[in-house]
Amino acid sequence: MLPDTTTVKARWARVQENLRAADVDAMIVLKPQNTFYLSGYTPVIYSHPALVVLPAEGEPVFVLHALRAHSSRRVSLITDIRPYGRWAKEIGPDHWWQVLADVLAERGLAGGRIGIEGEFLPHNHLTRFAETLPEATFVDAGQALMRARYVKDAAELESLRVAAAVADAGMDAVLAAVAERRSEVEVSAAAMRAMQDTWATRYPDRIAIDFGNLEGGVFNSLWAYSLVGDRVPMNSAPPTDRRPVDGEIQWTVIWTAIDGMHTENERSVAVGRLNAERQAAFESLLAITEEVTPHLRPGLSCADVYEAARAAYRRHGYGDYLPGRVGHGLGLGPHEQPSLGPTDDLVLAPGMVLTIEPNLRIPSFGGLQHSDSVVITETGFEYLTTTRRDLIQV
Amino acid sequence: MLPDTTTVKARWARVQENLRAADVDAMIVLKPQNTFYLSGYTPVIYSHPALVVLPAEGEPVFVLHALRAHSSRRVSLITDIRPYGRWAKEIGPDHWWQVLADVLAERGLAGGRIGIEGEFLPHNHLTRFAETLPEATFVDAGQALMRARYVKDAAELESLRVAAAVADAGMDAVLAAVAERRSEVEVSAAAMRAMQDTWATRYPDRIAIDFGNLEGGVFNSLWAYSLVGDRVPMNSAPPTDRRPVDGEIQWTVIWTAIDGMHTENERSVAVGRLNAERQAAFESLLAITEEVTPHLRPGLSCADVYEAARAAYRRHGYGDYLPGRVGHGLGLGPHEQPSLGPTDDLVLAPGMVLTIEPNLRIPSFGGLQHSDSVVITETGFEYLTTTRRDLIQV
Repeated sequence: MLPDTTTVKARWARVQENLRAADVDAMIVLKPQNTFYLSGYTPVIYSHPALVVLPAEGEPVFVLHALRAHSSRRVSLITDIRPYGRWAKEIGPDHWWQVLADVLAERGLAGGRIGIEGEFLPHNHLTRFAETLPEATFVDAGQALMRARYVKDAAELESLRVAAAVADAGMDAVLAAVAERRSEVEVSAAAMRAMQDTWATRYPDRIAIDFGNLEGGVFNSLWAYSLVGDRVPMNSAPPTDRRPVDGEIQWTVIWTAIDGMHTENERSVAVGRLNAERQAAFESLLAITEEVTPHLRPGLSCADVYEAARAAYRRHGYGDYLPGRVGHGLGLGPHEQPSLGPTDDLVLAPGMVLTIEPNLRIPSFGGLQHSDSVVITETGFEYLTTTRRDLIQV
Repeated sequence: MLPDTTTVKARWARVQENLRAADVDAMIVLKPQNTFYLSGYTPVIYSHPALVVLPAEGEPVFVLHALRAHSSRRVSLITDIRPYGRWAKEIGPDHWWQVLADVLAERGLAGGRIGIEGEFLPHNHLTRFAETLPEATFVDAGQALMRARYVKDAAELESLRVAAAVADAGMDAVLAAVAERRSEVEVSAAAMRAMQDTWATRYPDRIAIDFGNLEGGVFNSLWAYSLVGDRVPMNSAPPTDRRPVDGEIQWTVIWTAIDGMHTENERSVAVGRLNAERQAAFESLLAITEEVTPHLRPGLSCADVYEAARAAYRRHGYGDYLPGRVGHGLGLGPHEQPSLGPTDDLVLAPGMVLTIEPNLRIPSFGGLQHSDSVVITETGFEYLTTTRRDLIQV
């Protein structure tokens, strides 16, 4: 569900604590996922910058184009809305950076240490900040926000469960379509149609829109693609009219976002009978996954999970096929921190949401990959996606 | 259709001419739309940076994560692929910036004037460039690429026609659903299902995936949303289970991207009989649009079109309701340059693709807006979207 005022205030407090720890006086937030996190409001289209100023103490301010004034006043949980530009009778200063400077001056922070999202903020934006706020010092505070997003709150978890239910409905349609030997495009379209139906009939009160980039984008958040046989190692690629032939493995990826929260459900399906090499690889991958998942629990680090995977790949004779990571964070981003890879020392904690997806890419026939979305619990983890995860054969 | 080698070479040449005119020795390109423009290849997921180095003379180089080595070698029209990171047996240097430095050193450009996309490139990326290339000077060359994209080539125009046909099929479903007094969510889902069907059955050889942001995203490129009555001034907002009542106006927005190229088809529909105020507004908006469109022709500037709109709004008594612009560029971005607004001096030329969308937002009842995608021709313009654009009443 969308956050309420209590929930966003708790989010502000978490980020503010991180800002104070980093000796930052205020943060300027531009990344769509992050402004949504702090406000519960999305302008959907981000080609006009939408910026949140979050001081280390006190209430945040939302700086938005005049075109968004009406909708943000109706929806945003940040209630101090400051429009720039003009749209019909709504008229503010010409430029967002003027409003930003006014807000920081009002708070007495024009000469402060100002946090930015270094991994996201376009270089020219920072130049404009610096010109408008010549007394300020700018420091990368992106992790102050990202770390606050690691552990999901109750509103986010509820949205994730709905997103997973929609993804599962899509995967049901996939399994039926693959059983009929449909093409990559047909399987993908069948999944997306099923998810549209599920959203419209079961969850019409939910947001099914994703975040785009700063040039705009198209944001249908119910997405699937399918790849067959030797096309699986393309990993992420447009589906084609290629159909499976018996003995091949078809892999379908479903990503859904509900209320901005992403889940992933991916399944490899044996089309008819597999030869011995493929059968052995599929069975080994399931065994590897079974050996890795007990390491998904509070107190172990992401790197611990990866090392468990490394050992399991070796044990089963696939040491040369270890991927760069075996899972990743999920939330407002479909690939957010942390990473279940060799260098991520983050220790797992209850409420973190991740994919678990050991995989094999074997040049002789393609590849194999199931991916599930899971939430870390007090004692281990719980699956959010529920499609059968054995050696699926149709 | 996707570009062929001749087409991308012509694109390189256009950008390179702009780079030389700006005295730039090489450009580092990161924006997903732009790397696709230069290569015809999308890794789909951009959380691992994909960078093109385009020297002012000579062939470009594509720097990609090892995970994308297989697919890029099969698809990219930039054939000099340099992987970084590791994925199973594919192993490159650890970091993309090391590969970048190697490539520029090879070309003798490590101390050159290097162009960047200032409006897009994250600040930390530029810091890494500067650390790795201490002798180089960095300048904003984003417009060298953006200007090359203004006039669409034959491959792009063909994709735009397919995107428009898919959007039109979606709008047919919208008109039928509104006639049945369906909710915002149901109208949206009906449009998206119809577009999935049209894509899967008529255009299965086409890419229906959009570009996300650097944190990843979900990229179903067939999208619609619908807003009823007093919700229209939200402009872009998630649809809800709100149904129209007779006398209201329902507005539906369809954006589609095929092969990365975007079209827009938006229609306002009178649900039953309108009262006098709404009827007059609808008729006036159609008259305003009719007075503006003759100005869509080569030789006039974007600002000229806007001034024609300003005069028409005043003539019809809606001078206070003039929007900030009456259309915008379309292409690899759904809201790309130019803007049909008061300050854009770009002169229209054959092959440019734009929306034309004068609109009204009237607090007493909501708003009105048709949007069509058009291409500028030698003598005027041609509509790409073809849905009826009169006073539609159901």
